[in-house]
Amino acid sequence: HTSLFAIPTTSSSTHMTSHSSLYMKHVLSSTQFSREQLHHVFQVAHEMRMAVGRVGSLDIMKGKLLGLLFYEASTRTSCSFQAAMLRLGGGVVPLNVESSSAKKGESLEDTVSMMQSYCDALVLRHPEPGAAQRAIRVAHCPIINAGDGTGEHPTQALLDIFTIREEIGTVNRLTITLVGDLKHGRTVHSLARLLTLYDVTLRYVCPKGLEMPEEVTRFVSGKGVRQTYMTLDKALPDTDVLYMTRLQKERFSSAREYDKLRGSYVLTPQVLTRAKEKMVILHPLPRVDEISVEVDSDPRAAYFRQAQFGMYVRMALLAVLLGAA
Amino acid sequence: HTSLFAIPTTSSSTHMTSHSSLYMKHVLSSTQFSREQLHHVFQVAHEMRMAVGRVGSLDIMKGKLLGLLFYEASTRTSCSFQAAMLRLGGGVVPLNVESSSAKKGESLEDTVSMMQSYCDALVLRHPEPGAAQRAIRVAHCPIINAGDGTGEHPTQALLDIFTIREEIGTVNRLTITLVGDLKHGRTVHSLARLLTLYDVTLRYVCPKGLEMPEEVTRFVSGKGVRQTYMTLDKALPDTDVLYMTRLQKERFSSAREYDKLRGSYVLTPQVLTRAKEKMVILHPLPRVDEISVEVDSDPRAAYFRQAQFGMYVRMALLAVLLGAA
Amino acid sequence: HTSLFAIPTTSSSTHMTSHSSLYMKHVLSSTQFSREQLHHVFQVAHEMRMAVGRVGSLDIMKGKLLGLLFYEASTRTSCSFQAAMLRLGGGVVPLNVESSSAKKGESLEDTVSMMQSYCDALVLRHPEPGAAQRAIRVAHCPIINAGDGTGEHPTQALLDIFTIREEIGTVNRLTITLVGDLKHGRTVHSLARLLTLYDVTLRYVCPKGLEMPEEVTRFVSGKGVRQTYMTLDKALPDTDVLYMTRLQKERFSSAREYDKLRGSYVLTPQVLTRAKEKMVILHPLPRVDEISVEVDSDPRAAYFRQAQFGMYVRMALLAVLLGAA
Repeated sequence: HTSLFAIPTTSSSTHMTSHSSLYMKHVLSSTQFSREQLHHVFQVAHEMRMAVGRVGSLDIMKGKLLGLLFYEASTRTSCSFQAAMLRLGGGVVPLNVESSSAKKGESLEDTVSMMQSYCDALVLRHPEPGAAQRAIRVAHCPIINAGDGTGEHPTQALLDIFTIREEIGTVNRLTITLVGDLKHGRTVHSLARLLTLYDVTLRYVCPKGLEMPEEVTRFVSGKGVRQTYMTLDKALPDTDVLYMTRLQKERFSSAREYDKLRGSYVLTPQVLTRAKEKMVILHPLPRVDEISVEVDSDPRAAYFRQAQFGMYVRMALLAVLLGAA
Repeated sequence: HTSLFAIPTTSSSTHMTSHSSLYMKHVLSSTQFSREQLHHVFQVAHEMRMAVGRVGSLDIMKGKLLGLLFYEASTRTSCSFQAAMLRLGGGVVPLNVESSSAKKGESLEDTVSMMQSYCDALVLRHPEPGAAQRAIRVAHCPIINAGDGTGEHPTQALLDIFTIREEIGTVNRLTITLVGDLKHGRTVHSLARLLTLYDVTLRYVCPKGLEMPEEVTRFVSGKGVRQTYMTLDKALPDTDVLYMTRLQKERFSSAREYDKLRGSYVLTPQVLTRAKEKMVILHPLPRVDEISVEVDSDPRAAYFRQAQFGMYVRMALLAVLLGAA
Repeated sequence: HTSLFAIPTTSSSTHMTSHSSLYMKHVLSSTQFSREQLHHVFQVAHEMRMAVGRVGSLDIMKGKLLGLLFYEASTRTSCSFQAAMLRLGGGVVPLNVESSSAKKGESLEDTVSMMQSYCDALVLRHPEPGAAQRAIRVAHCPIINAGDGTGEHPTQALLDIFTIREEIGTVNRLTITLVGDLKHGRTVHSLARLLTLYDVTLRYVCPKGLEMPEEVTRFVSGKGVRQTYMTLDKALPDTDVLYMTRLQKERFSSAREYDKLRGSYVLTPQVLTRAKEKMVILHPLPRVDEISVEVDSDPRAAYFRQAQFGMYVRMALLAVLLGAA
């Protein structure tokens, strides 16, 4: 097929007449996407990757502004969205929450109403569960939930799967092992749910007491996807995608308990000798010490490429939501 | 008449020869504007509104940078100017005052001198009265006062009147009622002064002790504009524009005094049943609870459109100051 | 010769085949530059100055993003790089360190890896000596050291010399006097080293105990450049370039000692009566009181032009590093 962006002006006028079903929609949850919508976003993201590699940026979002409403620290997500919007030719208006009217008692709804009067789409990160739902009640423009304390951070799950797709070529027929604190990690919850759109086998590696929440495992089995708890040792040899996450000391009953366990959840070159040669290692970052820095030079280490793929996915999502792709 | 922006390149070269009288001027006070200058800014702002609606942004400020010097929190004003400059095709350089050289003892004048060496115009918000006056003493480029503790915040008054103009079609022959703390609210001071350029009737609704400063009422009556204190009850039926502002608890002698009064200054759907059907409700925002959220869906509620009109006014002002319109 | 930027598209394709030797290099130290490289950067910076004067900005970095990683306050440097990148047609992604993952324990190396997955070049300011060296170990894109606690801040030294060149026309055969705390001031260290590429005479004016570090004077004399300690009184009449820096109270053994001395290191119109008529006064800024504000209107006062020249130098450096000039 031909690129959507080869001749931006023409392609954009072509697409005017046939917007994606995601056009002007909100992005609240990873489970809102159909297989077809995901496929479209990933295809556009792949073209974004090619286009950025070739010319750095596009002009397809010229005249559009993205508002960033981060009520909670999130460098990575914030920088990734900024870079994505700039590489689409659009502009970014960051709200500085520290010095914002929110401190003068303004409601989230009013801040959203104000920001959407300046911008064409908003990205919202908020510590309170349900904040994104409250925001969309007053929204006239697309709102993208970038985390609202409920375990949802849908663009992270999208970029995780896009990375698998770009690294391996497909998501189907893969064995995907999720490692770490599966109870509290919201990225693994969203990812497990979203992976049910594909034909995959899930393996969970976690300390006792930090298992996947039942509502996630029930959702996953309801979709007919196999999921098994295993040790890393047993899971590793057949794993195609190894998804590492942080173990947080404060989740353990004692420092001794933590110290006893952590060794079994740290990825080293030594551990990797038992893994497939074509495996892909992912991590939502920031990493602390659950992946040894010696692993970084391993070709299987895809976690920094994953950050870059995140930018392409966000470019694609923004373009699709605002009718530019 | 034809749009200034239909063919940006041509129009900009056309206008090179006939700059506005505001070209390369500072914006310090709402009272500096002649009726003609206001008219020109509003006409350009209206064209900006049309152009943004049609194409999102213009290219007329390409190659221009706007520096933001906010020594005091002001999300709304800062985001509005950022969006305005980006939608003109220009760039924004925000000074992060928290981490700025001002903390190393640099004078405001030196910071302005530094920033203007990078930028084409500067927006200044500063807590000290007279800061904008000090800034212009060293300025080679236009400085826009976005509040300097003296009660002046001229672009707010401009956007208030532009909103009336866009919502009703004219500012003349209107009854405009200002409600709330009229003593300390700098937006109502600037607005009352600027409204004397038009044929209006002013009504003031405020608690005892929070009346308009005498210098404002003297200025207003000196221009031959009628002004009367009334209760909201009496003022409402004939009001064309209802301008609400915050009542701050700390301005009252006691919490009891505050609680007793606040009911009479809160706008609800019930209160609005006594108002004209074509009235316009404005508020400088952020709102706390002086307008019930149930009012937001009332077609007369114009305060969020007002925020958007502010962006168009700032676009117009920047374009006029820098010779692009 | 003809301008590199007259017809951006053509010139950029012309230059594709013959990149500067600085193409895709890191900028770590002022001593890394050859005379030829400096010459090239300054020539491009001069063209940038002309181009900005004529059209405000260029398009030669369209599609490129610059990441700002400031782990330490630096308004001036940060704003200067932002303005430079925007005037080149590129975009800027600032990392907000206060709210960054660095606070969650992420290593500098990982933050650099993340940011370079979004950006085409990074500017790094960090309080720890060696931070820039650590950053380049993982870098795939050019890193510019904007200060890392080791006394290196190479772009400052470049802009100092570029300013001399633009103000006087040449750097050779000049007597350059460095004044203030020569022991702790990193700008004077870098400047003295870099000036050894030229035929200059150096004079040092400083309080006892705040002399140039021996490693700097050894480097300078090793290059055959004359350097002499003098009083300001004696040095002034022959000085072509007077480089003023701050004296910090806390560097003195007592407040009395400081008060006794400071008078001899403050530049006033009175002091300047003994200086050459064509002298140039520089200062890295921010200034506190070592240059009287009455000096600002003296044509020899070049310190605010110096800030602007800094923007042109950074434009040139970015363009050269990324292959656009």
